[in-house]
Amino acid sequence: MTSLASDADLMALAVRLYPICRSITGAGLRETLRILGASIPLRLIETPSGTQAFDWEVPQEWNIESAHLIDPDGRTVIDFQDHNLSVLNYSEPVSATLPLERLKERLHISTRNPDWIPYKTSYYRRNWGFCLRESDLRQLRPGDYRVEINSSLEPGSLTYGELLLPGASKREVVIFTHACHPSLANDNVSGLVVASALAQWLADRPRRFSWRFVFAPGTIGTLCWLRNNEPDLGRIDHGLVLGLLGDAAPWTYKRSRRGNADIDTIVPHVLRELDPLSRVVDFDPYGYDERQLCSPGFNLPVGRLTRSVNDGYLQYHSSGDDLSLISGESLGRSLLACRSIVEAIEGNRRYLNLSPRGEPSLGKRGLYGSIGGASPASFQMAMLWVLNQSDGGPSLLDISKRSGLDFESIRSAAIALQNAGLLTELSGME
Amino acid sequence: MTSLASDADLMALAVRLYPICRSITGAGLRETLRILGASIPLRLIETPSGTQAFDWEVPQEWNIESAHLIDPDGRTVIDFQDHNLSVLNYSEPVSATLPLERLKERLHISTRNPDWIPYKTSYYRRNWGFCLRESDLRQLRPGDYRVEINSSLEPGSLTYGELLLPGASKREVVIFTHACHPSLANDNVSGLVVASALAQWLADRPRRFSWRFVFAPGTIGTLCWLRNNEPDLGRIDHGLVLGLLGDAAPWTYKRSRRGNADIDTIVPHVLRELDPLSRVVDFDPYGYDERQLCSPGFNLPVGRLTRSVNDGYLQYHSSGDDLSLISGESLGRSLLACRSIVEAIEGNRRYLNLSPRGEPSLGKRGLYGSIGGASPASFQMAMLWVLNQSDGGPSLLDISKRSGLDFESIRSAAIALQNAGLLTELSGME
Amino acid sequence: MTSLASDADLMALAVRLYPICRSITGAGLRETLRILGASIPLRLIETPSGTQAFDWEVPQEWNIESAHLIDPDGRTVIDFQDHNLSVLNYSEPVSATLPLERLKERLHISTRNPDWIPYKTSYYRRNWGFCLRESDLRQLRPGDYRVEINSSLEPGSLTYGELLLPGASKREVVIFTHACHPSLANDNVSGLVVASALAQWLADRPRRFSWRFVFAPGTIGTLCWLRNNEPDLGRIDHGLVLGLLGDAAPWTYKRSRRGNADIDTIVPHVLRELDPLSRVVDFDPYGYDERQLCSPGFNLPVGRLTRSVNDGYLQYHSSGDDLSLISGESLGRSLLACRSIVEAIEGNRRYLNLSPRGEPSLGKRGLYGSIGGASPASFQMAMLWVLNQSDGGPSLLDISKRSGLDFESIRSAAIALQNAGLLTELSGME
Repeated sequence: MTSLASDADLMALAVRLYPICRSITGAGLRETLRILGASIPLRLIETPSGTQAFDWEVPQEWNIESAHLIDPDGRTVIDFQDHNLSVLNYSEPVSATLPLERLKERLHISTRNPDWIPYKTSYYRRNWGFCLRESDLRQLRPGDYRVEINSSLEPGSLTYGELLLPGASKREVVIFTHACHPSLANDNVSGLVVASALAQWLADRPRRFSWRFVFAPGTIGTLCWLRNNEPDLGRIDHGLVLGLLGDAAPWTYKRSRRGNADIDTIVPHVLRELDPLSRVVDFDPYGYDERQLCSPGFNLPVGRLTRSVNDGYLQYHSSGDDLSLISGESLGRSLLACRSIVEAIEGNRRYLNLSPRGEPSLGKRGLYGSIGGASPASFQMAMLWVLNQSDGGPSLLDISKRSGLDFESIRSAAIALQNAGLLTELSGME
Repeated sequence: MTSLASDADLMALAVRLYPICRSITGAGLRETLRILGASIPLRLIETPSGTQAFDWEVPQEWNIESAHLIDPDGRTVIDFQDHNLSVLNYSEPVSATLPLERLKERLHISTRNPDWIPYKTSYYRRNWGFCLRESDLRQLRPGDYRVEINSSLEPGSLTYGELLLPGASKREVVIFTHACHPSLANDNVSGLVVASALAQWLADRPRRFSWRFVFAPGTIGTLCWLRNNEPDLGRIDHGLVLGLLGDAAPWTYKRSRRGNADIDTIVPHVLRELDPLSRVVDFDPYGYDERQLCSPGFNLPVGRLTRSVNDGYLQYHSSGDDLSLISGESLGRSLLACRSIVEAIEGNRRYLNLSPRGEPSLGKRGLYGSIGGASPASFQMAMLWVLNQSDGGPSLLDISKRSGLDFESIRSAAIALQNAGLLTELSGME
Repeated sequence: MTSLASDADLMALAVRLYPICRSITGAGLRETLRILGASIPLRLIETPSGTQAFDWEVPQEWNIESAHLIDPDGRTVIDFQDHNLSVLNYSEPVSATLPLERLKERLHISTRNPDWIPYKTSYYRRNWGFCLRESDLRQLRPGDYRVEINSSLEPGSLTYGELLLPGASKREVVIFTHACHPSLANDNVSGLVVASALAQWLADRPRRFSWRFVFAPGTIGTLCWLRNNEPDLGRIDHGLVLGLLGDAAPWTYKRSRRGNADIDTIVPHVLRELDPLSRVVDFDPYGYDERQLCSPGFNLPVGRLTRSVNDGYLQYHSSGDDLSLISGESLGRSLLACRSIVEAIEGNRRYLNLSPRGEPSLGKRGLYGSIGGASPASFQMAMLWVLNQSDGGPSLLDISKRSGLDFESIRSAAIALQNAGLLTELSGME
C-alpha cells in the first residue's frame, strides 16, 4: 500500500495524477481511480451508458488516443500529447481538412487569461474543438488545416470509486470529491490526494461513525451515486465536499443549504482554531457536487471545504492551474484540517448529567482540590460547564462555544466526568 | 372617465379636491367621493348616524353653509369662504354676540406655527369655534363680536367609498386612505389622488389577487368599514394604508403590528430599489387607519406608506399644508412606487421544483450553454437559485433576498423554468 | 425590631456581623442568623449531620473556641482571636508540636495578595491549618512550633434561615444570599445586610407574589434547602441571588441559565435606569448559589445581582475584604436597586384589552382631549401602546421596551385603562 502520510507523499501522488486526461467517463478516469486504489481499498462502480439518473442520462463513454491540428505548411500547431486541455473534452472523432475561417468556430481561447489554454467540455452535445492560447490563435495563418482527433464515443459506462470504513454505528459521514477534471492541479488533483490520504489515515482508527468516501465525476457521477444509494441516504448525519485544497489561499467553508446543520458548526470551529484567516460563506447553488447533494429533493447536511473557491483564482479552469500552483505543504495542512474535522465529528458527543440536581461533589471523586476558597482551574471550569449544560440538548461543541473554553478541554472534562460515573453519552446512533 | 395617468392629471385632481370642506360626514365628503368616481367606479356606502361601530357610534351628520366672525366695528374678521380650516370642524350652529374675553375661549391658534391657521375638530362633543393665525388674534380689539355659523348637526349618515377589482383569487389586498381632511393638500388630498390613480391603472391589468380600495373618514369611517366587513377579513393577505404622498420627502414605510408580514418584506424591498433614502420604521399605535386595522382584535397584515410621516413636517395640520407643498412629480413618483408594490405583491409567487432530486439538466432544455467549463451567467445563476430554493417555502422575493439577485431576474428565471416544465406555482389561493 | 431603613442602620448591622467566625455549620452561623432575627422574623431550620442532600452529605458540625501558633521562642505568632481567617475554616482539633519544615505544609498564603491573609476552607476532608501574610511566613524561624486548635467536629446540624412573606398569590419569588463566610465584609456581610433590609421593607407592603428569603450556607446549605423544598419548586416564578453589594463598583447582573426568563428582562431594565454603568453578563456555572439553583435538574429562573463579581476584585477572599471596602451609602444604593426590582416584579403585569377591535374611544371616557387635530401627549401615547399590545402576550415591561416609553408611564396608563374598564389583568397566578 502506497503511504500518504507525509507532505512529500501527497505531492508525489499529485505529480502522478496530474498528466492523466480524465473526463466524466473513460480510461483516464479509471486509471486515476486505480492509482488511488494503491493507497486505499477503493471499490469501482460502473454505471452503463444510457442509465437514467433522475433528470439526466449517462452519456456514451469517451476515450481519446491522440489529436493533432496541422497548419497549411504541415506543421503540427496543436498536439494533444503536449497538453490534454488543448482538445475540447468529449470531442467526437474527426478527420477533416477545413479552411482557417471555418476552423475558428472550433477554437476556444480564454478571454480572461489569454496566455493560458482554457478548460472546455461538451459532454451532452456532440461537438469537437481545440483550446489554445490567444497568442497561438493569432499566429495561425490563412489556409487549409488538417484536423485529426482519434477519439471514440461508444456505449460503455461511467466509473466512480467508493470506500466505506465501517464504524460502531451505521450512521454515516460522507466525503465527496470530484474525479473528472483532466490536467488541472488544484481543481481537482488536490481533492483526490487529500481525500485519499484522509481515508488512509482514518482506516486505522477506531470510528464511531461509518465513513464513506466517494470519488466521482462531477454532476452525472454524483447523480449516479445518489441514484444507486437513494434508499440509504437517511443514514447520513454529516457530509463534506472536498476540492481545491492545494493552493496557498486560506480555507473557505461553504455552508450546507440547511445552514444550521451540525457540520456548519463543526467545520467553522475547527478552521477558526487552525487559521484565523479562514472564511465561512453561505450556501449558493453553484460550485461542486454540493449542487446535487443539497438540491431540495435531497437537502443533505453537506458542506464544502476548499482553499480558493471555484472561479475564485486567476488560473481557474485553465492550463495555469498546474503543479506549480500547489505544494506538498499546502496539501498537508489541508489534510491536517480534514483530520481535525474528523476528530471533531467523532468527538462531538452529547451527554446527560446523571446527577443533575445541584452540582455533584467533584471533591469526593478527586476531581476538585480539597482546599476551598480559591477559584477553579480551567479544567474544573470545563467540568462545571459540561455538567451544567449536559441536559441532552447541547453537544460538546455547543458547550465549547457557549463557555469560550476550547473543544479539547471540554472533551477531556466530559471523559473525566464519564469515567467518574457522572455523565452518560447520548448516542442517538444505531 | 377622467384619466389619472400623467403627473399633470394627478396634480389637476389635487387642485380640484383641495378647496372642498371635508369632514367625517356630510356633503363635502360625498362630493369628494363623487369626483373620484369620475376616474374609478367607486361605490358609496352610507352608514346611518347612531350606528354602533364597536366602541364607537356614528355621530350626527355635519354640514356647513357659511360662517362669519364680525368685530365691534362691523368688519368681517373671519369668513369660512376664505379658508375652511378657520372654522372648528364639526362646529354646531350658532348665532350670538359675545365680548372678546368670552370669545377667546372659542379661538384656536397653533402654538407651533403661529403664522398658519391650525386644523382643529370636535367630532364627538358639541362645540363651536374658530381657528386663526396668532397675528390675527392679537389684532382683535375689545368689544362685542357677532358670531354666525350656519351649520347643521342632524341625523344622516357617514359615507365611505369602495372599489373591488376582482382577481383570479378571492384572496384580497386592501388599500386604505382617509378621506375626511378639509383643505390640507398633503394630508390627505395626496392620498386620495394616488390611491385613485393606482386603482385606475390596476383596473386594466390581469390580477391574481382581488384588490379592494377604501376611501373612508379616519377612525370612525374605518371602524364602519371593519364592522360592515368583519366576517370577510380573513380573506385579506396584504394591506397598505396610503397618505402624505405629495411632498418632497423620501418615502417612509411603517411596518404592520405583526412586523413580519409579507408586506413588511415586500414594500421595503421595492422602496430600497427606488430610493436609497427611503426609510422603514417600526409599528406604533399612532398615525392613520393602521391604528384600527392593526388593533389587537384585528391585527391585519397592513403596513403604511407615506413620504413625510404624520406630525413629521412643519406644515402638518395647518393652513401651511397647501398646494404649494405638493407637486405632480412627487405624486407621480409615489404612484410609481405603489405600482411597483402592486407588481411585487402580484409577482411574489411560490413555486415547487418538479425535478428536485439533483439539478435538472438545463442544457438539454436549451437553458444553459452546451460548452462547459465557464461560469454561469447571471440569468443561469437566477435559475439555479430558483430551482434550489423552490421547495414550497421561500417566495421569489425571499429567493431574491437570499441570493442577492434582483427580483426581476428571479421572476424571469421562474417564468422560464415554469415554461420548461420544471416548476409549478403553489398558489395558496382559493 | 431593629430598623434597617437608613444607610447608617445598614452599616451598623455590617459592623456587628463582620467579626463573627461563620462557617457552613456551627455557632457563628447561628449567631449571625439570630442577629438578623432582630430585624426580620427569620425561622431557623436545622438539618442534621449525615443528611443526604442529592450528591452531598451534611458534614459534622464545626465549632471553634480558640487557636494559637507559638514559635520556638514561645511567642504567639498566630492567634485566632486576632483574625478568624487565620485558621483554615473547618480545621479539626489539634494539639501538637512540630518543626517548621513540617508545619509549612499546613500554612497557606495568598500568592496573589501576599499582604493579606487568604480565606481557605476544608469542609469535606479532615484537615487543619493556618492562613497568614507572606511577610509573616517569611519571618518564621526554624525550630519546633506549638499548635493548639481548640475546635470540635461532632454530629450536629446545618442551620439556614428562612422568611416567607405571603402575597395575594402562592406564586413565589425567592431571594437567596449565602451566610457562611467569616470575616469578609463585602463577601458576604453585605448580602446579609441588604437582603435583611429588603425583607424588612417588603414586610409592610401589599404583595401580589409571595416572597421567600433564604439565608443559607453556600452549596451544602442551598442543597439542603432545595432538598427540603423540592416538591414546591414549581411555585417559583422569579429568583435572585444577592451578594457583594457593599463595595463601590457598579452593579452586575448575571443572567439565569435560561437566559430568557422574565427576571433576565426585569433586572437589566431596572439597573439601566439607575446606573448606565451597570453591566449584564451571561450565565456561567461558577459563582454563588445560582450554581445549584440553575443546575440542569432544577434550572430555576434565578439570576444574580452583585456589585463586583466573585473573584473580580483585588481583596476577594482575603483579609483585605474588610469593613473599609464597604460603605453605608453603597449598601443603601444596593437596597434601593433591590426595592426597584421588587416593584418591577410586582408591577410587571399582563393585561387583556377588553375592547380589542379598533381603538376604544378614550375621549368619551375623559381620557383624551375633546379637540382633535393635535398630537397625543405622552400619557395618551402610553395608553395607545398598552391597548394595542395587551393581547395576553406582552407584559408591561415588554410594552415599555417596545414603545421606548418609561415603565412608570406604561404602568400608570394601564391602571387608568383598567379603571376605565378597558383592561383586565391576566394574573396567571393562583
